[in-house]
Formats: sequence, C-alpha cells, structure tokens
Amino acid sequence: MQSVIAARRDGLPHTQAELTYLASGAGDGSIPDYQLAAWLMAAYLRPLTDQETAWLTIAMANSGQRLDLTGLPKPWVDKHSTGGVGDKTTIVLLPLLASCGLTVIKMSGRGLGISGGTVDKLASIPGFRLDLSPEELKNQAREIGLALTGQTPELAPADKVLYALRDVTATVGSIPLIVSSILSKKLAGGAETVILDVKSGSGTFMPTFENASELADALGRTAMYCGLNTRIAISDMDQPLGSAVGNALEVKEAIRVLSGEESRFSRHCIQFAGLTLEASGLWASRADGEAAALQAISNGNALAKARQWFKAQEATVDIISHPELLPQASIVDEICSEAQSGWISRIDARAVGQAVVELGGGRQKKEDEIDYSVGVEFHVEVGSPVSTGQPLVTVHAATEKAAQAAVDALRNAIEFSQTDIPRREAILKMPQL
Amino acid sequence: MQSVIAARRDGLPHTQAELTYLASGAGDGSIPDYQLAAWLMAAYLRPLTDQETAWLTIAMANSGQRLDLTGLPKPWVDKHSTGGVGDKTTIVLLPLLASCGLTVIKMSGRGLGISGGTVDKLASIPGFRLDLSPEELKNQAREIGLALTGQTPELAPADKVLYALRDVTATVGSIPLIVSSILSKKLAGGAETVILDVKSGSGTFMPTFENASELADALGRTAMYCGLNTRIAISDMDQPLGSAVGNALEVKEAIRVLSGEESRFSRHCIQFAGLTLEASGLWASRADGEAAALQAISNGNALAKARQWFKAQEATVDIISHPELLPQASIVDEICSEAQSGWISRIDARAVGQAVVELGGGRQKKEDEIDYSVGVEFHVEVGSPVSTGQPLVTVHAATEKAAQAAVDALRNAIEFSQTDIPRREAILKMPQL
Repeated sequence: MQSVIAARRDGLPHTQAELTYLASGAGDGSIPDYQLAAWLMAAYLRPLTDQETAWLTIAMANSGQRLDLTGLPKPWVDKHSTGGVGDKTTIVLLPLLASCGLTVIKMSGRGLGISGGTVDKLASIPGFRLDLSPEELKNQAREIGLALTGQTPELAPADKVLYALRDVTATVGSIPLIVSSILSKKLAGGAETVILDVKSGSGTFMPTFENASELADALGRTAMYCGLNTRIAISDMDQPLGSAVGNALEVKEAIRVLSGEESRFSRHCIQFAGLTLEASGLWASRADGEAAALQAISNGNALAKARQWFKAQEATVDIISHPELLPQASIVDEICSEAQSGWISRIDARAVGQAVVELGGGRQKKEDEIDYSVGVEFHVEVGSPVSTGQPLVTVHAATEKAAQAAVDALRNAIEFSQTDIPRREAILKMPQL
Repeated sequence: MQSVIAARRDGLPHTQAELTYLASGAGDGSIPDYQLAAWLMAAYLRPLTDQETAWLTIAMANSGQRLDLTGLPKPWVDKHSTGGVGDKTTIVLLPLLASCGLTVIKMSGRGLGISGGTVDKLASIPGFRLDLSPEELKNQAREIGLALTGQTPELAPADKVLYALRDVTATVGSIPLIVSSILSKKLAGGAETVILDVKSGSGTFMPTFENASELADALGRTAMYCGLNTRIAISDMDQPLGSAVGNALEVKEAIRVLSGEESRFSRHCIQFAGLTLEASGLWASRADGEAAALQAISNGNALAKARQWFKAQEATVDIISHPELLPQASIVDEICSEAQSGWISRIDARAVGQAVVELGGGRQKKEDEIDYSVGVEFHVEVGSPVSTGQPLVTVHAATEKAAQAAVDALRNAIEFSQTDIPRREAILKMPQL
C-alpha cells in the first residue's frame, strides 16, 4: 500500500492491479483507514486520469457482490442525481419508468446537510422497508419492475468505506473520486443503462454550470470506459426543485405529479423519463419517450405502479389516496409577500435547504434523527409574478420558535425584482437525441 | 480538523491555533489517525512555511511533558543525527561532553531499515536501562551530567503518533515534517543548545549534499524561530561512519575511541565535541573545544564518565575493560582483497547497512528482533591503499549461510581504483566559528 500511496503522491501512473488492490483492501478492511486517507488526499491533489478512474470504479464495484439481473426483463436501468434541495425525482421516475416496461433497481442514500436523500423521503411513509437484500431487490424487480433500497453492505463496500473517509478528510470534492463513487454503485447494481442528473447551483456541491459540466463530462468518459450506456443531463439547483422541501411534503408532491399535476418539477420528471426511455433503446427519440411517460401518467399506470411498489416494500399504501396519513407538523405558518410586488428573481436553494435542516428535516451530522413532517412548500418559483400580501411559502414546523427562525431565513432567501423575470425550466443541458 | 485539513490541501496559511490543535489532538489521541494521515499527505504536497513549521514544532513539544532542567548545571545540550550506517557518535559524544562539564540529556530512537539506532546499540550491553522516566533523566543528569533514554511516552507524544503515521503513509520525506519531528523532541527534552549532524549519502535518506543542505538550512531556520541555540554540520554517509557496523561491534568501537584510538571516526567525534563546546559558550572557539575534548580523552576523564554513565543506567560496566563480555557472533569470516590491488574508491553505505540488516543486526520491520552480536568490521576506508590478499572486512554472523550472503553483498559494495584516491574526512560542512 505504501508504494501505491507514494505513486499517487508523486503523480505517477497507477496500474490496474494497484487500484484493484486498493479497492479490494478498502472493501474488506485489510487496508487501514489512515493509509486510505493518505491516498485519498494524494488523489485529491494529484487527480486520477480517466483510465485510472475507470479502473478504480470497476474495482470498487467488484469489491463486493455485483447484482446479476439475468432473467429479469430488459432493459435494466438505474438513475442517479448528484443531490440537491427538493429533489424527489426518483420517487416519480421509478414507478413511471417501470410502468413503461423498464426494469429499475436503485440504491439510494440518506441525506446529509442541505442535500436530501431519497431514503429519508421514503422513510417518511409508515412501514416503508429500505433494507432489501440483493436477492429481495431482484425478486421484487422481477415481479413488479422496480425496487429501491438504502445502501447495502453487500454492494460496493469499498465505496462505503472510501466515502465515509472522504467525508471526514476534506477530500469529497475531487471529480475522479466523485465519479468512481457514483458509477461503482451503478455497476454493482447491475444496470446497463444509467441516467445521470448532474446538479448545478447553490443548493448542490457544484455551484457553477462550469463545475457541473466538468463533472458531467468526467462521468460520461468514465461510464464509457466502464461499458455503461449512459445519458447525462445538467439541471438547475439554484432554486429548489419543485414546491416541497422536507421529507413527507416531498412524497406528497411526488404523488401529485404521478397523479397528473403539472409543474416545472413535473416537466423535469417527464424530460428525464423521455431521456431514459430513448436511452433504453425501446423508443426512437426523447420526444417519443416523453409522450409515453405522459401517457403512463394520464392513464393511471404510473400511479398504479407506485401503489404496487409501496405495497411490495411494505409501506402504507393508503397514503396515496390519503396523504394526510403521512407525518404532519403541528405548526403551519404562511409567509406572504410584504411591501414587495413584482417578480421573484431568486430563491436561494442553499438557504432553503439549510432552513429545512434547522427545522429538523435534515441532518447536520450523520447520526442526527430526522423529523419527517417538517419542511416548506413554495407557492411561487423564480419568474412568478407576485403582489402584496400574496402567499409565498408555507412553513411546517415542530415548534413556534423553529417556525419563526425558518420564516426569517426564507424571507432572506427570496429576492424580488421590479422588472419581468423569465421563468426557467429545471433542465439546463440535455443530450440532443 | 476538517477545516485544518482543507486549509493544508488548498495551500492556505495555517494559524498557530490550528497547528496547536493538531499537535495536541495527535498527542492525546482525540484526532483520529485517518484525519492526521490526510493532513500529513496534504502537508507533504503543500509544504509548511518556516513559521508554520516552528509553530508545529513548539506545539508538538507542548503535546506532552517538557523537561524543566532548572537546577541542573548549565549549559544544557542535546545532539541529534539524521541517521545512518555505523553512526555511534552519541555513545562517544555524551560521556565526552559530560566529562567537559556540560549537562547532556538525550532521547534516542531504535533502528529501522539500514539506519541503526543508538538505543539498540546500547541495548547490546547487558543490563542497560533505556526506559528512564523524565524524573530519572533529570536526577541522573544532575548527578553525573548525562542521561539517555529511548523515546518516552511523556515527551512529545504528538511526534510519536505523527512519526508512526508518516512511516506507513509515504510521508516521511517532507522536510518541514522531518524538522518538526527532530526539533520538537529537542525542545521537549529541555536543552538550550542543540548540535545537529545532518547526514548526506547513500546510507541515509538525504542521498545528495544538496538534499542534506536543504534539510540543514530548514533545521537552522526553524531552530531559530524556536529559540534554540543550534549548530548544524553536514557529514558524509556515502561510506559507513567508522569501522564497525552492528550493535555490539559499534559499542566496542565507541569505547576504543573514548580510550584514545584515532581514526576518521574519532576525528568526527572530536570535531563535533569542539563544535558543541564552542556552542555552549564556555569555549571561545571550535579549536579550543577540540583541544578540551582531546584532553578529556587522553586524561581518561571521558572513559571514566562512560563508566559512570553505564553504571547509572545499570549496565554491565565490565564490558569497558572486557569487551568480550558483549554478545559475540559464532561465525567470524574474513574478506580479503582478491586479484584487486590499488585504492578503495567506494564502500556503499546503503549496501553495507542492508547486509547488516540481513545478518540480523537491524530491523526490516518495526517488530523484528535484533541479534546484537552480528555485523561487520572494516579494515579499510575510502582512500585506503590495498594489496592482493589484504584483509578488507571481518563479518560476524550467526550462521555460515548468513555469513556467505554478507560476504557476497560486501564484495559488491566495495569498489577499487587503480589510481590514487584521496581519503575523505567525515565532516563535509561545519559552521565557521
């Protein structure tokens, strides 16, 4: 291991054998944390090449079990978002794609800081099982076309170890390390087609479009080396995605979209669905895919699939018809436009995410408990015209004090303009197909 | 700690508070190894400034107890060598300096790889106690003017932790980290005057004079920031220092020098003694100091002090008059000059050190046991004229097989020239005073 660290330190090329040794030793615990940490810092400062990133990705995928989806209906797809504020796309997309005939198996993470996690959102639904074994994932996907679980120790254990170390050694923000973390889990999950949503803006860790493009390009190159059929879009995370931010509130919004609600967020989901259906090879174009997705929503197939999904994972299916069965916050406050009238020019996703964490809806530290009921619901988005007294945001809080802090924070997060501001769709860049 | 790591990663200035936090957390175990390892790699690739190195040094010294030598006769001195093959200078210098009236307290290390350690050499003397407590060090130095111990957990514990981590994370060779490690122990040991012997050549980790000069300069600058009165010399480690390499054999050579034997090695010791006596302020010049040191040897005071020292640390004093009481190897082989006659042009210190490690006289790994009896004794040095059949080296080994391997290795380590090669003194650069 010392010679592997020294090679990285000196910016020398790694062999495939070295990176396989590293990932396998990280996964089985045979390489001590401090050596991995030294390597991670060296890799942060002397970044891996594309070839090395691909070797590391494959080695990390091979550090544990790899799902073999043989026997399940093709195409096998997976999706990933680099994370942000209000991003409940997975909860819409999984049943929507499965209702169009794709097989979707996904591992999701828990939220940390301003970034929410799909696992936490689904955990707000009473009974939802998020600890499926690899065998259970496959069996469920065989039966109903989709399955989702939290990160399991069986799949890509090297990623679990390296990610936890990066988190505490100031080495999170290295593009090759981010790429290998994301794609190793996709490879281990058995998918052949992967759709990646790279976020750009204040509410994610790639604050500018240039940063996000760099990550998107690196993901694309490494995915190609790894033999994955991939589509990558860049989407906006300067304002929250959708109206709801907060776990149970986001589940409600996802169900509304599956039930036919139209919004900036629903269009984001439909566009991603179209991209995925095109990528799957079963639809000739993104436009054809989008039409199929819209139809699956309008004919009720997508919502029916969500119902099947929730049931298969032992969740209370009743919440689909009765969202009031989801956890409800005791304090509900409305923020209305004060003297201001004009257009919304900015809703700072980072500030909104932080406000929701402080309401108790996210984690400051990994071990924090989450209050699923709290969060915020926006009645406006960037470009919305507003008049004095108009409701802007509803705050769901556990205490009056927390509600007041959130109201103050949100007032600071929203900016107004006296001149017309155009609305902005969520997707900033999409492959042309 | 994460912000401290991130600052180093990005090459931003550290505050004194940050480095104090780091050293104190390393010393008391409150900062996990993996975070220290990440910081060490970042510090390797984004080196500390002189000011930062001094802050770190002071903080490492303060991470444990600091010896307060108040009440002991001044001047208080300490010496350090950056390590090499056959370097038993400390065993000569300590009693020599103490016999001239200085108070010398020293912490010494164990050997690893080709670098021998004073603690191992002294441990070859039956009974030698090398685990003196800070209190015992002071009491003994008060009584007889000198005391030496192995690294104690009480003094500079941060260095112990960081050094062990550097050793396994490929971060040993960073000059600011080397400097802080060396000087923190000197500061913690309470000395006011410190003599540093920076080695240069194949038998140490600074292979060229330029490398060694860079380290010497950095040591000098940081020592100044730390308020230490310091003298630094650079000495040759391209050939072994002195005739003996191997623990008990080196003790014998040290005793011969204290008894009056003259050699390249004895001149090295006298020059260092002169430098130290000048630095102590009690002698006007190096030349005066050298004269005093030579006198202490010729009048028997230095050897008498060694006798006091060994006795105080519970060692078998008899070995001074009866060196055969030291561990003796069962196999003794002579290497003689074969067809060659001419001059010795090279004795590769690294190869010699490696041969002694393989005889069992050094450690490949930290946990290895040492055979104190084995080693080699040279009858020639670079520049010695040799004729066919003349004895070159005596090999002391535990088995015939090991002896044969050493003979082969040593034949390869020695080079000959048909033309006159000048002898070379050990000291390459010395302060002009």
